[in-house]
Amino acid sequence: MVPMTRFDSATTVVRVGENRYAAELDPGYLIGSALNGGYLMSVLQRAALAESDHPHAVSSSYHFLRPGSGGPAEIGTEVVKRGRTVTTVLVTLRQRGATVITGTVATAALASQAEPLYETPPVEIPPVDRCRNFDPRESRLAEDSFVSRVDVGFAPDSYAALAGERAADSPELYGYVDLSARDGGSAENPEAFLPLAVDALPPVVSLLTDWSWAPTVELTWHLRAVPEPGPLAFRAHTSLVSDGWFDENVDLWDAKGRLVAQSRQLARVGR
Amino acid sequence: MVPMTRFDSATTVVRVGENRYAAELDPGYLIGSALNGGYLMSVLQRAALAESDHPHAVSSSYHFLRPGSGGPAEIGTEVVKRGRTVTTVLVTLRQRGATVITGTVATAALASQAEPLYETPPVEIPPVDRCRNFDPRESRLAEDSFVSRVDVGFAPDSYAALAGERAADSPELYGYVDLSARDGGSAENPEAFLPLAVDALPPVVSLLTDWSWAPTVELTWHLRAVPEPGPLAFRAHTSLVSDGWFDENVDLWDAKGRLVAQSRQLARVGR
Repeated sequence: MVPMTRFDSATTVVRVGENRYAAELDPGYLIGSALNGGYLMSVLQRAALAESDHPHAVSSSYHFLRPGSGGPAEIGTEVVKRGRTVTTVLVTLRQRGATVITGTVATAALASQAEPLYETPPVEIPPVDRCRNFDPRESRLAEDSFVSRVDVGFAPDSYAALAGERAADSPELYGYVDLSARDGGSAENPEAFLPLAVDALPPVVSLLTDWSWAPTVELTWHLRAVPEPGPLAFRAHTSLVSDGWFDENVDLWDAKGRLVAQSRQLARVGR
Repeated sequence: MVPMTRFDSATTVVRVGENRYAAELDPGYLIGSALNGGYLMSVLQRAALAESDHPHAVSSSYHFLRPGSGGPAEIGTEVVKRGRTVTTVLVTLRQRGATVITGTVATAALASQAEPLYETPPVEIPPVDRCRNFDPRESRLAEDSFVSRVDVGFAPDSYAALAGERAADSPELYGYVDLSARDGGSAENPEAFLPLAVDALPPVVSLLTDWSWAPTVELTWHLRAVPEPGPLAFRAHTSLVSDGWFDENVDLWDAKGRLVAQSRQLARVGR
C-alpha cells in the first residue's frame, strides 16, 4: 500500500452521516488569511467522488462565496442524478454555519489511453530545468504556507515579469506546477491534485496591476485525461480585464504532452 | 412600454411560492426531440435574476441531466449567498418529477460603458452581409423549430465546411447569431438572449464526425459586457476531442466589437 502523503491527508473527508462529511482544513494552504480555492476544491472533489460509482471528476463548477479558513468544516452532498455514464453531485462546504463554496461535479470514467480524434497543437513551454521558483524563504507569507507546499516553476519570461524585472508583453504565464516535490502529491491518484493545480498560480492580472488579492467568483475545470505522475506544464492567460472583473484560463499538460485539464475562472480585480 | 417578444414570452417564469417558479416550455426551441440547452438556460436565468437584487447574470454554470421537452416545468431556487457585490442563486428545472438541468448563477451589476484595462485583439470575422444562413425550409426539422427561431449566419468557410462542400481546416466556426430578426430578441434586455446565443450553434465536433446529437454535460458562461442590441459575432472552437468527450468554446462580440460573452461546454460526442 502506498503511504498517505501530506496532500492526501489534508484533503481527507470523513463520512459522518447520510450526505454529510467532515473535514479538518489545513492552514498550510492559506494564502494570506484565506485558504487557496484549489485546495478547497480538492477537498470537495473527494466528497463528490465518495458519493459516485464513477472514478473521475470530469467537469466541476464551483462558486466561491466566502474565504475559507483552517480548522473544521462540514460538507453536504446531494446526488442530483445517478447515471450509467455520468453521475452528478452537488457539494457545499460550510464553516461556522456559513457557506464557503458550493460546487457541482459531473463524475464519469475516462479511458486512460484514449487516442485523441482531434487536439490543438500544444503550447511551447521551455523545459522544466530552465524554469525558476520563487524562494519560499523570501516570501512574505508564513513559513509553512502555500508557497512551501506547491512547487511552481516559471518560464524565464514569466519569472521576469512577475519579479517586476520587466513589463510583460501580455498577461500570460508559463511554467510547471508540481505537488510531488514538496507535498508528496496524491500517491494513488495524480488527478486528485488537479483542482489545486488549476488554481495554484499568482493571478495573471497581477502582471497588469499591483499585486493584490483577486477573489475567484466562479471556477469551472474539466478533466480531459488522467495525468501521468510528475510536473504539469501550464499556460495561464486572460482575455479581458474590465470593470473590475477578469477571466483566467489555465491549461495543464502532463509529461506525455497530453492536455489533462482546462480551467476558466471569473474573478474580481483586488483593491 | 416595449411590447413583449416571442422570446420574452417563451422564457417567462411565474412565481408560484417561496423559491418556486413555473414555466411553460415552448416546443419551438426543440432540436429533434430535446429542447435546446440555451433556451433552458435562458428560462433558468430569469428565475435566478428574479431572486436577486442585482441585474446581471455575470457567471453561470449549468449541468445538463436529462433532455427537456415542451410543456410545463417547475423551477426551484435557492439563494446561497446574498451580497453587496455578488448574489449567488441555485436554480433547478424539473419536468414530471425528474431534474432536467441544474445551475448556479452569480449575479452582479456590470457597468455598461466600462473601458477595458486589457483585452485580447478581437478575432477577425467576415462582415455580416458575407455570411450565409441555412434555409429553414430545407431543414429536416419541423417548420416551427429552432432553426426558424434563431438566425445564425456562417462565414463562407464555415458554411462550406458545414454543408460538406469541403473539409474544414480546423474545427472552428465563425459568423453571427441574431435573435431579433426572427424571434424578436429580448426587447428590453439584450443580455437575456445570451444564454441561448452561446448554445445556438451546431456542435463544432460535427466538422470532424458525422453530424449527430452532442449532449452537453456542463456549460459555463460569463457575461463580460452588456451587449448592444443586434447581431452578435461568434467564434466557436474546440481544443480536444478524445474518448467521446469534447470541449466547445464560444465567444461573442457585439456590434461595437466588445467581448460580451465567453462560454465553454463539455459535451459527449454523439453516437
